Amino acid sequence: MVYPETIEAVGVVDYDKWLEPKRFEYKPQDFRDYDVDIEIECCGVCGSDIHAASGNWGKHQNPLAVGHEIVGKIVKIGPNAKEGLKLGDRVGVGAQCDCDSTCIACVESHENNCRNAVGTYQSKYKESGIETNGGNASHIRVNSKLAFKIPDNLPSEVAAPLLCGGITGFSPLLQAKVGKGTKVAVAGIGGIGHMTILFAKALGAEVTAVSRNTKKEQVSKELGADHYAATDDDDFEKKFKDTVDVFVNTTSSFTGSSFDKYLSMLKPRGQLYFITAPPAHEQLTLPPFKLLMNNISVHGSAIGAPHEIEYMLELASKENIRPWVQTVDINEKSLGETWDKTERGDVKFRYTMTGYDKFFKH
Amino acid sequence: MVYPETIEAVGVVDYDKWLEPKRFEYKPQDFRDYDVDIEIECCGVCGSDIHAASGNWGKHQNPLAVGHEIVGKIVKIGPNAKEGLKLGDRVGVGAQCDCDSTCIACVESHENNCRNAVGTYQSKYKESGIETNGGNASHIRVNSKLAFKIPDNLPSEVAAPLLCGGITGFSPLLQAKVGKGTKVAVAGIGGIGHMTILFAKALGAEVTAVSRNTKKEQVSKELGADHYAATDDDDFEKKFKDTVDVFVNTTSSFTGSSFDKYLSMLKPRGQLYFITAPPAHEQLTLPPFKLLMNNISVHGSAIGAPHEIEYMLELASKENIRPWVQTVDINEKSLGETWDKTERGDVKFRYTMTGYDKFFKH
Repeated sequence: MVYPETIEAVGVVDYDKWLEPKRFEYKPQDFRDYDVDIEIECCGVCGSDIHAASGNWGKHQNPLAVGHEIVGKIVKIGPNAKEGLKLGDRVGVGAQCDCDSTCIACVESHENNCRNAVGTYQSKYKESGIETNGGNASHIRVNSKLAFKIPDNLPSEVAAPLLCGGITGFSPLLQAKVGKGTKVAVAGIGGIGHMTILFAKALGAEVTAVSRNTKKEQVSKELGADHYAATDDDDFEKKFKDTVDVFVNTTSSFTGSSFDKYLSMLKPRGQLYFITAPPAHEQLTLPPFKLLMNNISVHGSAIGAPHEIEYMLELASKENIRPWVQTVDINEKSLGETWDKTERGDVKFRYTMTGYDKFFKH
Repeated sequence: MVYPETIEAVGVVDYDKWLEPKRFEYKPQDFRDYDVDIEIECCGVCGSDIHAASGNWGKHQNPLAVGHEIVGKIVKIGPNAKEGLKLGDRVGVGAQCDCDSTCIACVESHENNCRNAVGTYQSKYKESGIETNGGNASHIRVNSKLAFKIPDNLPSEVAAPLLCGGITGFSPLLQAKVGKGTKVAVAGIGGIGHMTILFAKALGAEVTAVSRNTKKEQVSKELGADHYAATDDDDFEKKFKDTVDVFVNTTSSFTGSSFDKYLSMLKPRGQLYFITAPPAHEQLTLPPFKLLMNNISVHGSAIGAPHEIEYMLELASKENIRPWVQTVDINEKSLGETWDKTERGDVKFRYTMTGYDKFFKH
């Protein structure tokens, strides 16, 4: 017996062989009156999936299905679910599957900062202690507040990566009130970064793509970037000093990034956002004088709030924003191979696992 | 022969005896057509004066007159001086005496971040290389853009500390758009901090004063603070977590301050401003997860822009904001004693050196 009793999934059953995911079943937390169950159609492969599956973020949960860029169809809906959702709707779920709706963050519409936020996988429901499993599965059960209707003209495999990677880069643009003519830099031309460029352009910004060397120059221009800055350029500061209002750093490590060079690009009162969780041991060390003398600010930004996700989907629909997606039909072997390719950076720019109806019994 | 040939001053002639300032004369840079000469009436004693006079910030300039909270009367004005200024006007000058008016910072009205800013003392004019001397002197010559009319109802000795300490705490409140009901915390209940509390209250904020222990509680309440938080309180995080939108840290050292505790007070999307230059060797080390998970930002903020200074003076005039000032008539002995008291924290909350007409020949 599978759904609704249990959910079929594919994921890590042995961390020492994390690149060989296996099929398993798990029992979800009891259905709450504001939950929805989603039959999953496809799911993006996020950098976080690799951190979690490989054990970088700890090996406590076993087995573990990752995946938090989920698109699927509502197959069960609670009587107190979010207004506007109904059975059969195509919805997306990102990196967060629950919030308490009562803490100061939720009350002020920053549910992404909820004091009792639950991650879509490798996290625990507060009430039951039950561990969460993600989107490499037949179904998922989530708080309906964290399920978002996908506009009709967005293909599922393209919409999927927006739910985590897309919103993670888009939210800083909204927080910084990016608009026509704002000078935006995006460092890290990968899964998140390429979507950040697309959204910044859609908002009317003048965009500089930033990377270590010139390898990503051509593709950055194809994505719409107006300028390109390689941090290994000897004349970097001369060329790019004072050129940026809002800097979105999508690189995943502080140690490996060129924070000082990034900061030098900022104009007076410029803002730098970092959006990914660095390895746990890393601290963020900043040059106080640089921040002081230029009135610079450094912002952390975690995924995005529901109202921002809704706006992102609307904008992507209206402005025809399309992340660059490679699809792979899901099975044990293909998922492991796709993780491996993602870890090696062999992706342009996001994999979406598809063909769920063929692999899972549903 | 003194002014206009030379300017009489009192300051450090021997760094080993910095607490024994002496009278000396210096020759100012040639008068430019947009300069004003000011006959000084009084000058506040800022923490920076102590850093500079004691040699904490280097011992390169000798002799050195400090003081950058200056009020006096315009006695000479260039034909291209700032509109609205005229001979005889009572004006104030803060920590900046020149800007280039052409760089990206100036063009965008952030003259405080000017790429060629010149400090009122212990700095060098870009064109002449001549070192600047401050407000413990008979006169000062400055770019008229950095001279501000003092409203009639503000006594000079009270207006003086606003020009550096006041604006340094006030500018972050403007940058953060503090208004009615904003929850503001101010750490460091001293010269700058006490003015920050006064201004935050005037803007309608709910203010929490933050200090190491309970010693400053009574006086914080007298200043108008609504709440008081001692970082040595065992229940600090329990009591003050999630209580603050905007945190202004006026303490002068990062090492000695409780940055982690400060950050814990911030609500989601809260902003922390630091406004003083720490000792040169200090780095700013931040916990990235804390910033990330709560969408927190950390901002450097240097003094303030001219339009912010003008608004501050207008607000102080209209709302009857009065820094707590102790006046001391200036002479070699009294100035040294006042520096000594300031260094020991024996001040409530700002000294203004007065009686200039008795000590200087003018």
